[in-house]
Formats: sequence, C-alpha cells, structure tokens
Amino acid sequence: MNTDNATSTTATRRDVLVETALDLFYRDGFHATGIDKVLAEAGVAKMTLYKHFRSKDELIVAALRLHDQRFRDWFVDAVESRARKPRKRLLAIFTVLAEWMSSDEFRGCAFAKAAAEYGDPSNPIHLAGAEHKRRLLDYIRDTAKAAGARSPGKFAMNLMLLVEGAIATAQVTGDRDAADHARKAAKVLLADAIR
Amino acid sequence: MNTDNATSTTATRRDVLVETALDLFYRDGFHATGIDKVLAEAGVAKMTLYKHFRSKDELIVAALRLHDQRFRDWFVDAVESRARKPRKRLLAIFTVLAEWMSSDEFRGCAFAKAAAEYGDPSNPIHLAGAEHKRRLLDYIRDTAKAAGARSPGKFAMNLMLLVEGAIATAQVTGDRDAADHARKAAKVLLADAIR
Repeated sequence: MNTDNATSTTATRRDVLVETALDLFYRDGFHATGIDKVLAEAGVAKMTLYKHFRSKDELIVAALRLHDQRFRDWFVDAVESRARKPRKRLLAIFTVLAEWMSSDEFRGCAFAKAAAEYGDPSNPIHLAGAEHKRRLLDYIRDTAKAAGARSPGKFAMNLMLLVEGAIATAQVTGDRDAADHARKAAKVLLADAIR
Repeated sequence: MNTDNATSTTATRRDVLVETALDLFYRDGFHATGIDKVLAEAGVAKMTLYKHFRSKDELIVAALRLHDQRFRDWFVDAVESRARKPRKRLLAIFTVLAEWMSSDEFRGCAFAKAAAEYGDPSNPIHLAGAEHKRRLLDYIRDTAKAAGARSPGKFAMNLMLLVEGAIATAQVTGDRDAADHARKAAKVLLADAIR
C-alpha cells in the first residue's frame, strides 16, 4: 500500500461521511440526527470523523457546502437546458422548482432548515444558508440583467421571494402546485419589469 | 383551599408551561430545547407536565396552537387597524410583516420551523403548521374577495407566497427589507388582479 492509495482512501471516506451526513440531516433534521447514526450509516469510524472535523457543527457546514455546490450546479443546468433566452430562463426557474417539489426527495430547503435550527445569524451553519441564498440571487439577477429587466436587482429579489415562498409552502402544507402558482405570479411581475 | 382555587392554579401552571415552552422552542429550536430546560424555566414540576401532556410532542402542539391563535389575532388586528378598505388591507399585510421582522423577537416563522424539524406531513406538529398557513390563507382570500379580486383564491395564494418568501428570506439572510420588497411585488400583482 503506497501513500497515494492511503490518501485517496482517506479522501473517499471523508466524502462518504459528508454525503451520508447530508442525506440524514436533510431527511431527519440536524439536531435530531446524532453523530453515531451518521457514522453507523456511513460505515466510518469515529476516528475518521475527528480526523477531518473538529465537531458535528463542522460536519454540518461541510455537508451544506457540498449541497450548495451540487444544488446550484443542478439547478442552473436544469434551467438553462430548458430555455435559451434569458427571459424564458426566468420562468423556467419555476418549472425546475416544480419538478424538484414533485420528486420523492423533496423535503424543503436544506439551508432554510439549517438556518432555522441554528438561529444565531453569526453561526457558520446559519451563514452557509445565507451564502447559498446570496449565490442563487446573484444567478437570478445576472439572468434578469441579460433579459433586460429595468432594475435587475430588485426584480431578482421579487422572483427570489416567490422561489422561497413556493419552497416553504410546499414543505409546510404539502401543496405541490406552489411552484406553478409562483410561476404565474412571476409572469405578471416579468411583464411589468421587462417591457 | 377550595377546589375552585386548586383548579385555577392548575390551569395557570399549564399556561405558564405552554407559554415558556413556546418561547424556548421558538428561540432555540424544538429538538435543541430539552424538556428539563422548559420545566426549570417555567418553574413547574415534571408531574404537572405529565398531568397535562403525555409527551414533549403534545406540549409542542399545544404551544403551536397558542401561537397560531395569538399570531393571527395580532396580525389581523394590526392589518385592519392600519387600513379600512380591503384593497389597502392587502398591502397593509406587508407593512405589518415589516414591523414584525424589525422587532427583536423576530426569528422567522415558528410553524415553518416546526414543520422543518418534524418533516413527516402526518406528524401532528407538522399538521399544526399546515393548519396555521391554511387559516392565514383563508383570511387573505376573504380580504381579496372583499376587494373584488378576479380570482380571490389564486390571488391570495400569490400574496401568501410573497409573505412566506419574505419571512424565509429575512430569517435566513437577515434582510429586514424583505417585506418591503414583497410589498412592491404585491402592488404589481394587485394592479393585475383588481382593475
């Protein structure tokens, strides 16, 4: 066994750990999921955990960062493969949202849930949620700008409110049509912002 | 000491318990707040807890029911004291929301947080959240109807998405202007729904 192999095995174990943690935290909640459950599910020793993370909180932040990257990659890709024109992409956001919501994996927004459980805005877990929202808002603003919106920043914020509202509504009430409602509202706002 | 007094003392203790539980659950989270912490803070014995509630979950449901009644009473009263005409009341919703968000007590929506921590839609805690949202939506729909909206149900859902979006955004990102943004978006939707 050479050093390279050992390194790659270690990296893989860390990945499995973060991946498993993300699944469990998202499905069952952050406080409700004990670290022992994560280790058992991942088939990873406690030593491996503490080699990479000083605490459960650090593992949560790593899981959220993985989710941030993966969710945005998936989301942007899904939106852009559905529509080529920026204006149409702004509405495709809600089509993609509707698809996500109707999938079995949907359990609301992992970042909103994390920020809810870790309410202190200076907590790194809470901050990871805020950072994700900022990046998503940036993407919508850039698209709104490309679409020729009068005030891309303000318009993007309005669309973001509908996105957040749809996710929260679907999560709490189970209304899977929330994204379709949001799409119709977005259409009215779009007609006002881009003439 | 007569029976009446004993009854009233018991009722008061239950109230103190539910009140304290609500404060702590809302501030620190549902799983993160242990039952012993609630009892210590309320100055109530474990026996009193189990006299009224079979479990922590039952206490959570009672706390959410209290919050539902109190929040809606406050909200409707605040909206209606700000505007007399139904059309103006639909926008006053966001003024009241902005005031709530700028207060020190604001920590997002207790019901969304509860539904996030108890993800199973058939859990009574989750259901209490869905019930609250339905009642709030009913109020907005009735107001939209009185204002002469073309499709009061759909229009109310759109406003509700903005309300939910503003609360979620303020909670996660700390953006206290979220309700003002939502108000402006609501104005555009209002002009489209009520001509």
